[in-house]
Amino acid sequence: MQSIGIDDILDMESRKRAAFINCLSGAKATNLIGTQDKQGRTNLSIMSSAFHVGATPPLMGLIIRPDPVPRHTLHNILETGYYTLNHVNQDILSAAHQTSARYDKDESEFGATGLTSQFVANIPAPFVAESAIKLGLKLVHHQELAVNKTHLVIGEIQTVLLPEDAVADDGHLAITEHGSVAVTGLDTYHELQPIARFKYAKVGQPVELLGE
Amino acid sequence: MQSIGIDDILDMESRKRAAFINCLSGAKATNLIGTQDKQGRTNLSIMSSAFHVGATPPLMGLIIRPDPVPRHTLHNILETGYYTLNHVNQDILSAAHQTSARYDKDESEFGATGLTSQFVANIPAPFVAESAIKLGLKLVHHQELAVNKTHLVIGEIQTVLLPEDAVADDGHLAITEHGSVAVTGLDTYHELQPIARFKYAKVGQPVELLGE
Repeated sequence: MQSIGIDDILDMESRKRAAFINCLSGAKATNLIGTQDKQGRTNLSIMSSAFHVGATPPLMGLIIRPDPVPRHTLHNILETGYYTLNHVNQDILSAAHQTSARYDKDESEFGATGLTSQFVANIPAPFVAESAIKLGLKLVHHQELAVNKTHLVIGEIQTVLLPEDAVADDGHLAITEHGSVAVTGLDTYHELQPIARFKYAKVGQPVELLGE
Repeated sequence: MQSIGIDDILDMESRKRAAFINCLSGAKATNLIGTQDKQGRTNLSIMSSAFHVGATPPLMGLIIRPDPVPRHTLHNILETGYYTLNHVNQDILSAAHQTSARYDKDESEFGATGLTSQFVANIPAPFVAESAIKLGLKLVHHQELAVNKTHLVIGEIQTVLLPEDAVADDGHLAITEHGSVAVTGLDTYHELQPIARFKYAKVGQPVELLGE
């Protein structure tokens, strides 16, 4: 075992530090965030920072980092109050990764990558047609975090688009059956192989697999 | 394709809604959070809400939900200002899941599950000896989120414990080689199978695999 302290971390070259620290939280969701500005110019950006905030009401968080480069996604979310979150699957993985290139505001990542924008219901933001599981979100909270000037964005889920019969009676949605992938660090994508589904744990009882 | 709207979601039975919404963000990291109170009583709790906040300084976030049941982890973090985050691997998966049972404050999840507490460096919180990748964190930000009364906790990484030679020259840490797993929803665990590692994306250039 080795130990790497905060001084060692701060001494690392900045790209090395970013790669290293991004690995430490563990597996991350891989999503495409779809937005548009008031002029209807669409934007699509791969993000690995989505996290569950709560079910009642249904809320999801995102961390969007500050940058010398303009952050179109954040600007559009604040301007329109809406955005979409689309699970990345294996079929669109390289197109999804390509959205991380620094396109101009006038060039949509949809056109540049070949992904198809889709407008559904009353959400004024583009969904990704090729994604199997996708959410329309309304902004309900935004703050700049004082600790490092990143932006915390929390959205309320307005609509969920997904394949017929995808949700089990108990509410579980087998996202792996629809190709959703994970990312570790900045650039390494993974398929998810189910290994166990456990029953609710109780004191004094051994862990049991669900269905046994 | 089917569409599930927010009214449908709010009409769901509460456990079904919790299971469903927890699936929607995608893959989640699976970590054990280690804490102790001022009397040295240890606590260990499985959590899937850790997320990357930034690399400089190295920061990680956690969402801890409110509950009628006492939240020992949050109490201990606020009392001591420190906690550990330990990657769950396949060998300790059922023990890790068992920490979600509602143990009394007087019964440590370490003793109850057979996991081994380990104290390292100057972090006044227990690490999990059986975990290959583990972090010692110092609390730097806490707030109750007005949107749903969950708690946002942000910690600065003070120390990283990991196997010798685990970090590549470019900073990447292959967490899957050390058995780190992912979770979807509330109870379904997954192994991570690498499928692609891409180069930094650039406008006008096709996506390329790293190393090609």
